[in-house]
Amino acid sequence: MARRRQLYEGKAKILFEGPEPGTLVQYFKDDATAGNGAKKGIITGKGVLNNRISEHLMLRLHEIGVPTHFVRRLNMREQLIREVEIIPLEVVVRNVAAGSLSTRLGIPEGTRLPRSIIEYYYKNDSLNDPMVAEEHITAFGWASTADMDDMVALALRINDFLSGLFLGVGITLVDFKLEFGRLWENEDMRLVLADEISPDNCRLWDSKTNEKMDKDRFRRDLGRVEEAYQEVAKRLGILPEAGNNDLKGPEVMQ
Amino acid sequence: MARRRQLYEGKAKILFEGPEPGTLVQYFKDDATAGNGAKKGIITGKGVLNNRISEHLMLRLHEIGVPTHFVRRLNMREQLIREVEIIPLEVVVRNVAAGSLSTRLGIPEGTRLPRSIIEYYYKNDSLNDPMVAEEHITAFGWASTADMDDMVALALRINDFLSGLFLGVGITLVDFKLEFGRLWENEDMRLVLADEISPDNCRLWDSKTNEKMDKDRFRRDLGRVEEAYQEVAKRLGILPEAGNNDLKGPEVMQ
Repeated sequence: MARRRQLYEGKAKILFEGPEPGTLVQYFKDDATAGNGAKKGIITGKGVLNNRISEHLMLRLHEIGVPTHFVRRLNMREQLIREVEIIPLEVVVRNVAAGSLSTRLGIPEGTRLPRSIIEYYYKNDSLNDPMVAEEHITAFGWASTADMDDMVALALRINDFLSGLFLGVGITLVDFKLEFGRLWENEDMRLVLADEISPDNCRLWDSKTNEKMDKDRFRRDLGRVEEAYQEVAKRLGILPEAGNNDLKGPEVMQ
Repeated sequence: MARRRQLYEGKAKILFEGPEPGTLVQYFKDDATAGNGAKKGIITGKGVLNNRISEHLMLRLHEIGVPTHFVRRLNMREQLIREVEIIPLEVVVRNVAAGSLSTRLGIPEGTRLPRSIIEYYYKNDSLNDPMVAEEHITAFGWASTADMDDMVALALRINDFLSGLFLGVGITLVDFKLEFGRLWENEDMRLVLADEISPDNCRLWDSKTNEKMDKDRFRRDLGRVEEAYQEVAKRLGILPEAGNNDLKGPEVMQ
């Protein structure tokens, strides 16, 4: 297989040129960072698990009519995606106070919010992804008001669906980050869900114990990080049984 | 005159019980702070000038139909105001990039914004007045969507009017901070402009030289702070001539 051209390397993923125009290959690394790269580490097997978890969630969202960039999983660490123009925003949906919302607004972590809250952060590492409001977004042209309406509508649907899906497997969806991209087909443009959905960018708490099952275990040095990611995958039915051999399946040979 | 009851002391002003129910006396101090109190100092005569400047601007706004809490100036450092329920938000209107917008979003200070931008900060000293979006404001009940609509409409009118007023005297209104309060009259509630409008909470640049004529001179140790405040008052016609004796007028005797 000819060596593919690498287009972009992020903190947790690499994007390669895809096999045909308009496609990319998204490769999931085991690298973990926190505090915009201030803390770095490896979560062994994370890339493999996030590739599977994100595939699973994107497919389920597709089934309810949420458009996504996902095409199909290629192997253990890679998936084929549609090439989109990424909107430079992190769209955060929050159901329970945690993380920066708690520290910035003085609301104790774990407080159920009066309603779901959507926040926007400008994707810019050198500025530490500052929080922005719709005012900044439309004034600087990062997205139009029509884009914003589409993103909000999609984010709320995704939140409703994923909150239910996770609750069904004993997990509280505390908050999560989404990214959207513009996809052109013929003359038409539509927004689709991009990036990934995984314990790297969701806060997932065990519904009974509130034990954290996400990247906060890495950020806050809580230990048992790999086990938490595996447990999420197991509960979602992706790793259905202990000793499942899927992680060593044929895809790894490619 | 009997000693009045002090209701609140802020960084730059003191509120006393007013002479009749539903009124307060707002006293302007010379104290200056920056960085949420991290830096403290005195700007000699600032209280006297801000009392006059804010009176002038509130009266001009009243004339165009913007409701305010201002009743009348009582003396050098005090004005009578209506008692309102302050909405715990700082409403910032920006026309030109400066200050935290420049540092947070990487936009060079002095860049004319593509359109006026309104920002909200949650008034809470212990949290350093964090920036919030309409999402947080309505979710936590700090203001209703109807309040927000009223505040935006008033803020945009105030911005248009004051931009013109200042431009007329050779000053660019770069940005400014407003506060609003709820005023009940019989059964009706309406939002009115509260607090003050002065070089303490406006960025005012000389239109030709871009020289700063506001509290940034104090914040950034640029010197000639008192002179800048005096110059703003002079240009507004409040201190019409050099050697004007108004600052030692009869009000000081009260």
